[in-house]
Amino acid sequence: MNIILLSGGSGKRLWPLSNDVRSKQFIQLFKDEEGNYESMVQRVYRQITEVSPEAKVTIATSKSQASAIYHQLGDKVSICVEPCRRDTFPAILLAAAYLHDEAGVPEEEAVAVCPVDPYVENRYYECVEKLGALVRQGAASLTLMGIEPTYPSEKYGYIIPESGGEVSPVKEFKEKPDLKTAEAYIARHALWNAGVFAFQLGYLIEKAHSMVDFTDYRDLYAKYETLTKISFDYAVVEKEPSIQVVRYAGGWKDVGTWNMMAEVMADDIKGKALMDATCENTQIVNELNVPIIAMGCKNMVIAASGDGILVSDKEASSHMKPLVEKVSTDVHFAEKSWGTYTVMDVQPGSMTVKLSMRAGECLSYHSHDYREEVWTVVSGKGRSVVDGMEQILRVGDVVTVAPGCRHMIEAETDLDIIEVQIGETISVADKHKYEL
Amino acid sequence: MNIILLSGGSGKRLWPLSNDVRSKQFIQLFKDEEGNYESMVQRVYRQITEVSPEAKVTIATSKSQASAIYHQLGDKVSICVEPCRRDTFPAILLAAAYLHDEAGVPEEEAVAVCPVDPYVENRYYECVEKLGALVRQGAASLTLMGIEPTYPSEKYGYIIPESGGEVSPVKEFKEKPDLKTAEAYIARHALWNAGVFAFQLGYLIEKAHSMVDFTDYRDLYAKYETLTKISFDYAVVEKEPSIQVVRYAGGWKDVGTWNMMAEVMADDIKGKALMDATCENTQIVNELNVPIIAMGCKNMVIAASGDGILVSDKEASSHMKPLVEKVSTDVHFAEKSWGTYTVMDVQPGSMTVKLSMRAGECLSYHSHDYREEVWTVVSGKGRSVVDGMEQILRVGDVVTVAPGCRHMIEAETDLDIIEVQIGETISVADKHKYEL
Repeated sequence: MNIILLSGGSGKRLWPLSNDVRSKQFIQLFKDEEGNYESMVQRVYRQITEVSPEAKVTIATSKSQASAIYHQLGDKVSICVEPCRRDTFPAILLAAAYLHDEAGVPEEEAVAVCPVDPYVENRYYECVEKLGALVRQGAASLTLMGIEPTYPSEKYGYIIPESGGEVSPVKEFKEKPDLKTAEAYIARHALWNAGVFAFQLGYLIEKAHSMVDFTDYRDLYAKYETLTKISFDYAVVEKEPSIQVVRYAGGWKDVGTWNMMAEVMADDIKGKALMDATCENTQIVNELNVPIIAMGCKNMVIAASGDGILVSDKEASSHMKPLVEKVSTDVHFAEKSWGTYTVMDVQPGSMTVKLSMRAGECLSYHSHDYREEVWTVVSGKGRSVVDGMEQILRVGDVVTVAPGCRHMIEAETDLDIIEVQIGETISVADKHKYEL
Repeated sequence: MNIILLSGGSGKRLWPLSNDVRSKQFIQLFKDEEGNYESMVQRVYRQITEVSPEAKVTIATSKSQASAIYHQLGDKVSICVEPCRRDTFPAILLAAAYLHDEAGVPEEEAVAVCPVDPYVENRYYECVEKLGALVRQGAASLTLMGIEPTYPSEKYGYIIPESGGEVSPVKEFKEKPDLKTAEAYIARHALWNAGVFAFQLGYLIEKAHSMVDFTDYRDLYAKYETLTKISFDYAVVEKEPSIQVVRYAGGWKDVGTWNMMAEVMADDIKGKALMDATCENTQIVNELNVPIIAMGCKNMVIAASGDGILVSDKEASSHMKPLVEKVSTDVHFAEKSWGTYTVMDVQPGSMTVKLSMRAGECLSYHSHDYREEVWTVVSGKGRSVVDGMEQILRVGDVVTVAPGCRHMIEAETDLDIIEVQIGETISVADKHKYEL
């Protein structure tokens, strides 16, 4: 089976660990069976391969996430990059066209679409397998997964099935209800709509051509910006008459807030931190190098990164968005395809960052108009090219790069460099790329 | 009058703002009338000069604090540096010998000794003036200030006076009592002993010679390490038959814990921080460059510095010492005589720091055996000397200093330098000083 994972937009609801370039799905707070930390996207990928070792996974995502996905999953997955953000209908269309036109997937194959961010048991992916099997049987054009509600939530859309059976035709879809309405839905065997659906690739390709004027994947990619922002649910699911739903009654958590994340984190403390004996029901994530001491904290979450520090009552944390929008949106930490980038100091006219490159990785050959850079190698080996001149990099080596100078770095081993950027204007936009 | 301010040891009870080299008296959380932040030591000095413009202030302190005092008060005060820590009796002796033998203060002059860390009103220093006046009248050998208790505290020693009058002979001294005993003391007009006393300089010099074998200040300084660790209270005050006490009934706070500090801080927030509307009775001090967001915090104190982050219930914060002792004691921020020193990154084999020098200040001429240094100037102007070679320093200049190389930096304007230290062993002990 082919699985398209939708790796959605950046979010601030898990600030300071999520930011404009680092989505919540890349924060490593879970653990695999061997006790290694893993992120949502790593966990989802691991679960899929445990349940369906043959599954081919394609991640539909934005440019800004491609580096982090590559950093976390390597080349085990295909990445279908959207040229810009256009909601789930265009994103799924583009991924389907990619499978059809680039990856050569036959039209009769089953494709399942899953979000990348629920915290679930492996049984969830067994249910996705079942969706695939039902698609192959051809009983309906679209086959959905519905989550058995554990309480009458007002936060989710509902699927009303014809019956309470494990597989049932869908009667109708309902928007987020109020409490009473939710209770009435549940009495009618309703299920939460968690955005999981499966179809034959040919079904969607045909649908796509009937709705959008394009020839193939490359053409769709080129005109992607002109597509209407619309969700797959509105554009396709809710209009499809031939549609069935499979009940999933296992564990399922939407870890979109710190309150929920704190429930499922592998450890109460990640990073340097100590809690005294009077702390209760409190979790700490510390990505900084300095320790956190927590005393007498009850029902709190404390999270610290290079971007900032959150100290919040768990309940209150769901309302953090307006506050996060008020604070500086400078990004101080980013996962890049080649490693990590950490801002250590910012002052008018200069910025000091630490580049930690993984062995074998390369920076692109590029230049800046408005800043010079001073690199000091603090660990590892590599080489640099500056205006065509190659130089070996060893610990203690210092390289000065003037404005306009083309430069790149290649890491032979893991390589750490302190980079001092100096200039009146220091901006990520000040970058020209070249072929080497 | 001469005032000796005792600037006591480093402490961890206001961690992470106080550390081994930065005592609580240097943290700037108060404000003067013009709204400028000031530290305990700056506030005390300001209050003394407001009440007694003619007072000559000498600060008795350790080597490690001398730089911070000079940084905060400049040369407005004399600093009497103890060669090592030896409790209050030796410290006061040394300061008295300094006044007598080095500053030429006549023996009949009044000297008052005050701790540097209580949070008080100006009336407190009016009371110190009164102590001086009483000393000049010669009614007793020692004149103490006693603090009118506001509750039967078990934390303080008590002075039992002969009478409840404003000035009274002292009947006896009592150790920290239990609650009931404290209540009984208060019924007898008892006062808290806050370590403020005054005497004629000649009285103490005579006392000193009767108790310690020394010729003058320099001789005492030379044999300081051999002196017994004993408090002035035990060694002198409690044995003196001719002793009186002056009642002080004004504001007095011992800001030794975050709980107390939070009560007297000038602002609920200092530094980059936001609190949501559901926070109550919470104070935040943030010395980091990144913002803190606090939500739903009740009765808490949050403090962040380059050394770490404290998130504590106010009550619980008084018990932080054992936790602080468990976390790394690496110092990441220090006030030096020439400016500030901030550690930005530490990894095996390297450390990156930021030096912020004030205009006109100089680093000593020194070398390191086991590390090289790479300096990048990020703002300001200055000059360096490396192995006798002088070099002008401008923004963007890079200087490499090999192990064994003698070097110094002089700041012409305020000068910021990113210094990358590289070596197997990086230690403050790896330093040789030279004359230039």
